Amino acid sequence: MQSFDYYIPTKILFGPGKLNQLATEKLPGKKALIVISNGTSMRKYGYLERVQALLAEQGVESVVYDKILPNPIVEHVMEGAAVAKDNQCDFVIGLGGGSSIDTAKSIAIMAVNPGHYWDYIHGGSGKGQPVANGALPIAAITTTAGTGTEADPWTVITNKDEKIGFGDLSCTFPVLSVVDPELMVSVPPQLTAYQGFDAFFHAAEGYIANIATPVSDIYALESIRLLNEYLPRAVKDGSDMEARGYVALANTLSGMVESTSSCTSEHSLEHALSAFHHNLTHGAGLIMLSKAYFGHFATKVPDRVSTMAKVMGHDDFIEALGALQEQCGVADLKMSDFGVKEDELEAIAKNARETMGFLFTLDPVALTEDDALAILRASYR
Amino acid sequence: MQSFDYYIPTKILFGPGKLNQLATEKLPGKKALIVISNGTSMRKYGYLERVQALLAEQGVESVVYDKILPNPIVEHVMEGAAVAKDNQCDFVIGLGGGSSIDTAKSIAIMAVNPGHYWDYIHGGSGKGQPVANGALPIAAITTTAGTGTEADPWTVITNKDEKIGFGDLSCTFPVLSVVDPELMVSVPPQLTAYQGFDAFFHAAEGYIANIATPVSDIYALESIRLLNEYLPRAVKDGSDMEARGYVALANTLSGMVESTSSCTSEHSLEHALSAFHHNLTHGAGLIMLSKAYFGHFATKVPDRVSTMAKVMGHDDFIEALGALQEQCGVADLKMSDFGVKEDELEAIAKNARETMGFLFTLDPVALTEDDALAILRASYR
Repeated sequence: MQSFDYYIPTKILFGPGKLNQLATEKLPGKKALIVISNGTSMRKYGYLERVQALLAEQGVESVVYDKILPNPIVEHVMEGAAVAKDNQCDFVIGLGGGSSIDTAKSIAIMAVNPGHYWDYIHGGSGKGQPVANGALPIAAITTTAGTGTEADPWTVITNKDEKIGFGDLSCTFPVLSVVDPELMVSVPPQLTAYQGFDAFFHAAEGYIANIATPVSDIYALESIRLLNEYLPRAVKDGSDMEARGYVALANTLSGMVESTSSCTSEHSLEHALSAFHHNLTHGAGLIMLSKAYFGHFATKVPDRVSTMAKVMGHDDFIEALGALQEQCGVADLKMSDFGVKEDELEAIAKNARETMGFLFTLDPVALTEDDALAILRASYR
Repeated sequence: MQSFDYYIPTKILFGPGKLNQLATEKLPGKKALIVISNGTSMRKYGYLERVQALLAEQGVESVVYDKILPNPIVEHVMEGAAVAKDNQCDFVIGLGGGSSIDTAKSIAIMAVNPGHYWDYIHGGSGKGQPVANGALPIAAITTTAGTGTEADPWTVITNKDEKIGFGDLSCTFPVLSVVDPELMVSVPPQLTAYQGFDAFFHAAEGYIANIATPVSDIYALESIRLLNEYLPRAVKDGSDMEARGYVALANTLSGMVESTSSCTSEHSLEHALSAFHHNLTHGAGLIMLSKAYFGHFATKVPDRVSTMAKVMGHDDFIEALGALQEQCGVADLKMSDFGVKEDELEAIAKNARETMGFLFTLDPVALTEDDALAILRASYR
């Protein structure tokens, strides 16, 4: 029998209306840096104002840093950390989607550690130095159901053409996360689908990963089952609160998979795609790679892949995946529509291994350079 | 959709040989009070010596307190806390079964709080005062698979005829737990069965409890499924490491159920039985109550009860329970063999509600005084 370490210290407030608990919940500091995207949603829907008012109810001050891009960049990590230091913030809140929460984690590190963020990154041109001073405490308030970052210690930041995941188990788990599906009602259908599939692949990759454990397995299978049942409903009717709730739960479970197992090389391949084409949404990239990717592993680890099909009510996983993509209106995505050129695929395969090579070591059976390129080519349209 | 808080901050080192990781794992202090039972096992099998040697490898000192009874008593909580203070211990390790680990948690509270332990207890003659000073950090090393206490914040201590559960989410979760099935090989068959059923009922009660959540549900069903499959094997052949491993996992999952849902009134009834008859092992008491207890709720919440049957490969839960008890050699236990008198049952029913009345509020449908007495009478042989 397999040995493993289990550790998910985050307190998660889950459910409709749970945001209001911020007014009374014990918080890890007295002055928060609130990190949000450069878009308009957090203000337009009143989420930022609500969070600030709830914090104020217990005398907690806040400062806003509002520049985060969909693929968050290292420049904003450094600038946000400077804002946190200048304002003597003692904790960081990521409010929004995965990009804001991930950046909040990275800012929390750089607010208390010297040098440049890339000094601490493993892979690519990162220097792999230890995070000597830990991080400010992190809180996550998620308004999307996609990355699961509210329940894992990971953050993915882009530095030029390197998009690399990082995290430190001792300091980058959020201490507190709020998962309130009422905050997700405003996500439009296409993004709901992209983000839902991101969660789906965190679970599916975590289920086939060679470090999967009996505990990560139950999170992964329940996440896959819930997304298969509720994601099409949430895409079709964004105000279906039951569907939003179970998709949010599936996403949090997929974050718990990230904390107890890992993504595999599908994520490395997609990060390379998005690093080359910043307009390519992560979830869309995964969807386009997924049939060829899991088709490859269906022959290598048939038991694992067919168990996933079973919880989706199918015999064949690739069929089940296709059906779910059809129901969510994302079966016809084309890489060429996002500007990906066929003659880039070799460079993308190479970049994937250079920048996030570690995930290739977690595949259930090693993927060769040729396998990876074949998956990219089979996925190209 | 239901709202809930999720919080299990314990780091769990799970698997055969994991005890050795104590030599390198970050520990929460420099001098441990090691709490063990008054029996011979921890020394006879070399577990105590191994733990002390592993701690010494990283320069951590230890003091042993070795008086804990199978139903641990408040006098030992107070004495153990005095030993911890006298020796300036900065953390507490519970090594052994649930009684040693539970007592370690209670000692950790009393090592840093004034007055008597019962000042902090809710229910019975407890004074319900807040635990103002928190607790010393707690580590749990479990050598049995029964209480799940290594993955929950609860501790059950007896004070005369009051046996009451207690815990404080902010300070009585172990910070570190070691679940190494190699340490469980020495548990004899009957105790293996009693303890395994304790875990089973933590999961089953937590599954029917009115505060069950979608996350506690997946822990509960997997725990029930694993125990149904592996407990008979572990009882039959204690050296079957695969069976020991999965029973240990089921037990840890049942502790996670305790942390995310709760026991119900079956536990109140059993605690009253054991408080009246200290020689009655907790697991045995639960087994004797279980058919009548779950038979009662099978008509009240049929969907929940039949889902549990399904993961056990049966249509009827009471049949499934009976079959599992047969396979584990515990189908013929009689209360009268443990000295329980039929004319005590009313007093026991009354004691259950007086000392652990709170669990009655978590039953899926309220149990009346008459219902409780009827369950005790139907269980009496």
